[in-house]
Order: sequence, then structure tokens, then C-alpha cells
Amino acid sequence: MPHASADTFLLELFAIFVWAKVFGEVFEQLSLPGVLGEILAGVFLGPHATRLVVPSESVGSLAEIGAIFLLFTVGLETRPMELIRVGRTSLRVAVAGVVAPFVLGFGYLTLRGEPSHESIFVAAAMIATSVGITARVLSDLDALNTRAAKIILGAAVFDDILGMVVLTVVTGVATGGKVHWLHIGVLIAEALSFAFFMIFIGPRIVRGMRPGVERMSTHDAPLILALAICLGLSVAATKIGMAAIIGAFFAGLVFADYAPEWGLAPRAHAINEFLAPFFFFIMGSRLDLAMFSRSVLIDAAVISGLAIISKVVACALPVLNEGPKSALRVGVGMTPRGEVALIVALIGLQMNVISQQAYAVVIIMTAVTTLISPLALRYLFRDEPHDAPPSPVDTEEVQRSSLG
Amino acid sequence: MPHASADTFLLELFAIFVWAKVFGEVFEQLSLPGVLGEILAGVFLGPHATRLVVPSESVGSLAEIGAIFLLFTVGLETRPMELIRVGRTSLRVAVAGVVAPFVLGFGYLTLRGEPSHESIFVAAAMIATSVGITARVLSDLDALNTRAAKIILGAAVFDDILGMVVLTVVTGVATGGKVHWLHIGVLIAEALSFAFFMIFIGPRIVRGMRPGVERMSTHDAPLILALAICLGLSVAATKIGMAAIIGAFFAGLVFADYAPEWGLAPRAHAINEFLAPFFFFIMGSRLDLAMFSRSVLIDAAVISGLAIISKVVACALPVLNEGPKSALRVGVGMTPRGEVALIVALIGLQMNVISQQAYAVVIIMTAVTTLISPLALRYLFRDEPHDAPPSPVDTEEVQRSSLG
Repeated sequence: MPHASADTFLLELFAIFVWAKVFGEVFEQLSLPGVLGEILAGVFLGPHATRLVVPSESVGSLAEIGAIFLLFTVGLETRPMELIRVGRTSLRVAVAGVVAPFVLGFGYLTLRGEPSHESIFVAAAMIATSVGITARVLSDLDALNTRAAKIILGAAVFDDILGMVVLTVVTGVATGGKVHWLHIGVLIAEALSFAFFMIFIGPRIVRGMRPGVERMSTHDAPLILALAICLGLSVAATKIGMAAIIGAFFAGLVFADYAPEWGLAPRAHAINEFLAPFFFFIMGSRLDLAMFSRSVLIDAAVISGLAIISKVVACALPVLNEGPKSALRVGVGMTPRGEVALIVALIGLQMNVISQQAYAVVIIMTAVTTLISPLALRYLFRDEPHDAPPSPVDTEEVQRSSLG
Repeated sequence: MPHASADTFLLELFAIFVWAKVFGEVFEQLSLPGVLGEILAGVFLGPHATRLVVPSESVGSLAEIGAIFLLFTVGLETRPMELIRVGRTSLRVAVAGVVAPFVLGFGYLTLRGEPSHESIFVAAAMIATSVGITARVLSDLDALNTRAAKIILGAAVFDDILGMVVLTVVTGVATGGKVHWLHIGVLIAEALSFAFFMIFIGPRIVRGMRPGVERMSTHDAPLILALAICLGLSVAATKIGMAAIIGAFFAGLVFADYAPEWGLAPRAHAINEFLAPFFFFIMGSRLDLAMFSRSVLIDAAVISGLAIISKVVACALPVLNEGPKSALRVGVGMTPRGEVALIVALIGLQMNVISQQAYAVVIIMTAVTTLISPLALRYLFRDEPHDAPPSPVDTEEVQRSSLG
């Protein structure tokens, strides 16, 4: 089975897993979010700093699966009815949180005299909240069941969809051709149909499949089915131009109602515990601290500031009726950018539309928002970490460990 | 995060997972072992047959991790005290099961007039029982807790170690230089010390670490620690010339006493449910049905027959005192060859010591023993699938699902 590099591959896995977790534990001991430690492990040990661990392509693939299971687990804990309940609020938050950063980012870069294509791309990268980071931080805070968390996650899903739409538009603009409105219309329609189908129809299909699944001879048939559908919807999402993780999120959502009965959540969590550190480490390892000039740092500081302020204000305003504290939680929770921002920047770079400097600005903006938001969230959630009834999953975990 | 081939990679994962599980379910419905279906899915859909799925290197890496978690899970269910209890019996079974196939295989090929280096390599590939296949089949039969299963798994671990020693010797012989007895002595001593340490000292270390682990702030600290040690010991095993999966097995063993309390087994199983299908599919996909000439098929048939008869007889004889049925179960349980056989053949091929034909013979022998043994085992265990008290893991699973 092993090829020549098998030993190296295993060593790499071991090193990344252990370093990510050691950094994570140190952060937890300092009352900082563990996920920050995992990302910083990637920054400090990665190819751009100490070069102790230079991730191979295979580990990159593992990180990709890690991102998928991260969102799948989040989906499993999001009951469709609850997303529908916060749906309109989330949608308002998402739209405001897409428009504000784009306008501010584009405005600033245009004033600085940057080429318009580059300004459009950087501004587009400022749009999408990272569902992955936010979900992990909220989960670490045991806050996934709060109303603010549900609004945030709902809005983050919506603005990933909006982010993908904007990406399609700016790519069309950048290739110099006309914007294909028909194509954009089709993409929007596809994305909305996908979300609608998953929220309203998907859970019914799973309910219909239930007797058949429970009759299957394969060990652990419900888990196998859920994993297959997670992979399948991830593929389906990419086929209609969305990020794979959005498909994974919806796959989790579709199974959320049966997760407690089938014991899906703790087992999906286990897969997650193994794979997620690779995702966060790799994310950190992409950050090149050395290539930043003074002008890049100034741009990055301004863009990061705009990225934070625009999201906090624009996302808090639509939910002011929930109370100022809840509104602030939503605004701050929407701040971290992640995989979608990096994808947008990478596409811009590959198309030769943005410079290495603009790319660096996006990377720093992603890192800054990712680093600051968890700290602020932890502060905002500090006094009522358990203000919601425990989820079925928590109950199950507690019962199991008290039995064990 | 995704690179250009990200979509292809996900599609590949989806296709392999679904096809492996569909074949597996069909086999289960026919009362055949599901693992056979997963391997045959690889044979029929792989690059040498229909070419519907041509696994990439990244999926190969995933398969490798799958093999590691497979053995880790097996280790988690093997309490060190129980391995010690069957240790001497297992050792006798292992030694007999190493000598007989090697002598018979080498004798036949020498009589056929094959070059002696080639004969030695093919004979060496006949030595090692596949712990992975056997464990999966016994687990599917709910027979892991029977005494026969414990003898089989103990012996399979011992003969993996012996197989690695023999591989070192034949590699030394084939390179034409003198056999480095000192080197072999060191390897044997290392391997035995490793096993001794893991069985007698490892569990005590885990017991000593227990208070610290339970004080850690990281979510799920025991699982994280177990995963880290699983990866670490897999790396350590390769460093002293053993297969990585042996290290993973011992990592599981070291945690076996605390697995119920920390809920490790069901969660390691979950990781396994996701990764193992890739391992079995890839194993099947390596089989090239087209390249087999008549003379290869004759050799393959004879070698396969010898591989089966030698293991069944030589491994049953030392345990005749357990009763003829139990002895036969042990003999048949020791029959399947797998990853170690493939590794030996691959090394021979890479060293230009064996021909493509001899390589094919080993592949067929591996496939035949892998295909026949599960069927025979299922037959031999048919009338008392639950003749042992349920393991702590099973109890926990049942309690959990009755609670859910």
C-alpha cells in the first residue's frame, strides 16, 4: 500500500496534528479560542516562517475534507425549522453585510488610485463571512444554540451564496467581456433553488428514506448514508458554482432532525476532531509574513479596519430590535473572513487581475478579521455562555459520559 | 482553499465512497462479507477494468490513513491483558504460519525452475496474514470477542512483525551483499522491544496521564490524545522498519482499557466508517485482471492453493487442543494476505528482483486468499455469532441508541 513518500506523509500528519493541538491547548489555557492557536501553528511552523512543516498536496486535500466536515457538523446542529425562523432576519443581515464592505472597500481602493479590476476583486473578497471560523468559535463557546448564533450562521450561509454570485459577476467583468446577465440570473436562480430545496424538501426526503435505511444490512447505515450525502451535495454545490462547503452544510441540515436518534452528531464530531486541525493549520500556513512592504501594510490595515467596521455596523443595524448586545454579537460574529475570501483572491491572482500586493492585502485582512473576531465574541458571550437549553447532542454526550 | 483539481477530488471521493458502499450493501444482502464488495468495487470500477474511477494520489493517502484507523480501532478493542493471555498460543500459531507458507512457496517455485531471488520474494510475500481484512471480517461477524478471534489477531500481529524481519533478510539476500546478521538482530530486537513496551508499559503510561488529560481545556482531550498517539506510533513503527499499521494497532491497544470510559471506540469507529472504504477500494483497484497469461494463472492457482493450505494446516495444528472447530477457525482466520504481501511484491518489483509475472502471481494470491477466507469464516462462525458476552463498546452503543 505505501508508496515511497508514505513515511513522510505520516510524519507530516503527525507533526501538523500535534502542533495544531499544542498551540490550541496553550490558547485555551490562556482563555483564547483554540482555533486561533491552530491557525497560528500553521503561520509559525509553515513554509513562510520556520519551514518546520511544509504541507504536501495530500495534506491540502485532507484540509479540504476537513472544511467539508466542519460545515457538515454545523449543519447537523442547525434544525431547518430554526433556520426558517431566523431566515428573514438572517437575509437582511446578509444583504447589508455584503453591500457595506464591498462599497467601502471599492471606494477606498479607487481613491488610492488602484486599477478598477483590482479594486473590484479585493472588495469582492471582503464580502463573505467565514462560516467555518464563526461556527467553530461559537461551538467552542457552547453558544451554537443562542438566537444570535442562529442569525449569524443563517446570514453567513446566505452571504456565501451572495459572495459566489458576486464572484461570478466580477470574474465576468475582469475577463473584459460583457457581464452575462443571463448567466448570472441562472446562477442566482440555481443557488436559491438549491437552498430552498435543502431547507424545505430535503428533510422530508430523509424522513421518507428512514424505514429503508433502518432495514439496510450495512453496519451503521444512517451514518454511511449521511456521509455519502455530505460528499454528494458538496460535489453538487461545486457543479452549480457554489463552494463545496455550502453543500456540506445543507447535507448536515437535511439530517439535523434525525441526528439525535441516529447518534450522528457525536460521530460527525469525531471525524471533525481528526480533520479540522489540518484545515486550520493549512489556512495559517498560506500566510507569508515576509512579503509585506510598508505600503501593503498600510493598505492592509485600512482594508482590515473597513472590513471589520462595515460588517459590525451593517450587520448589527438590521437586528437592533433584538437589543443592542444581541445586535453587537451578530455584527461581530459576521466579521471573520476565511475560505471564500482566499478563493476570490486566488482566482484574481490566477487570472492576473490582481497583484501579489493586493493578494497579500486580502490575506492579511482575512487573518486580522479571523484573529480579532473570536476574541471579541468570547468577550461578548462571556457572561452567559449557557443561556440556552442544552442541545440534544449535548444531552446525549453528557448521558453517555455519565454512563461510561 | 481549493486548487484547480478540488472539484475532481471531491467527485472522486464521492464516487469511491458510494460505489464501495453500494457493492458492500449488495454483498451484505447476499449474506457475503461487505468488505469483499468494497474490494470488488475497486476491481471493477478501477483503472484496470472499466476505468470509471482512477484513484489519485490524494485518495491513496486517504486509503493509507484508512488502514491506520482500521488497525487503531482493532487495537482499541484488544485489551492488553487478553493479548497476553493468548500470547504464547498466538506466537506458536504465528511461527508455524510463517514457516509453512515460505517453505512450500519457495519449494514449488524452485521446482518450476524460477530464479532463486524471485522464489524467495514470492515466498516471503506468502508469509504475513492481513490483520486489516481479518479484523474487519471478524468485526462484521460480531466475533471479535471470541477466543479464536483473539488468537488470530494476536498471531496476525506477531506474523506481521516476523514478515517484516523476513523482508529485511530477503532484501539483504537479493541485493547480492552478505546478509547483515547484526542488522537483522537489531531489527528483531527493536520489534520485540516495541511490542513488549506497548503491551506492558504503554497502558501504565496512559493510566498515569489520565488526571492531566481530564484537566485539559481542549474539547475532547482524550480523543485528541489518542489520535495523536495513533499517528505518532504509526510514524515510530515505520522508523524502526515495521509497517505503520502495527504502530496504529499498538496505539489502540494502549488505550483499550480506557476506551469505554472515554467513549473512544464508537468515535474511532466513525472515523473508520468514513476512511476504510477508500482503503479497500484502492486495494481492489490495484488488481489488473488483463495482464494474466495462462502460465501466470497456473502459478497463481498453485501458489494460492499452497498459501491457503499451508496457513490453515500450520496454524490449526498448534491450537488443536482448543477443539477441532476452534482450530479450524484459527487456521482459516490466518489465511487472508493483504497489505504486507503487496508491499513485499512491490519492493521486489522496484528492486528489479521479481518479474511482472511474479508480481501478478502475488496479487492474485492476495486477492484469492482475501476473497475465500471471509466466506469460510462466515460459514465457520455461522451458528454462534454471539457466543461471547458483549464487549463494553457494544454495551455502550446499545445504551446510547436506546437513549437516543
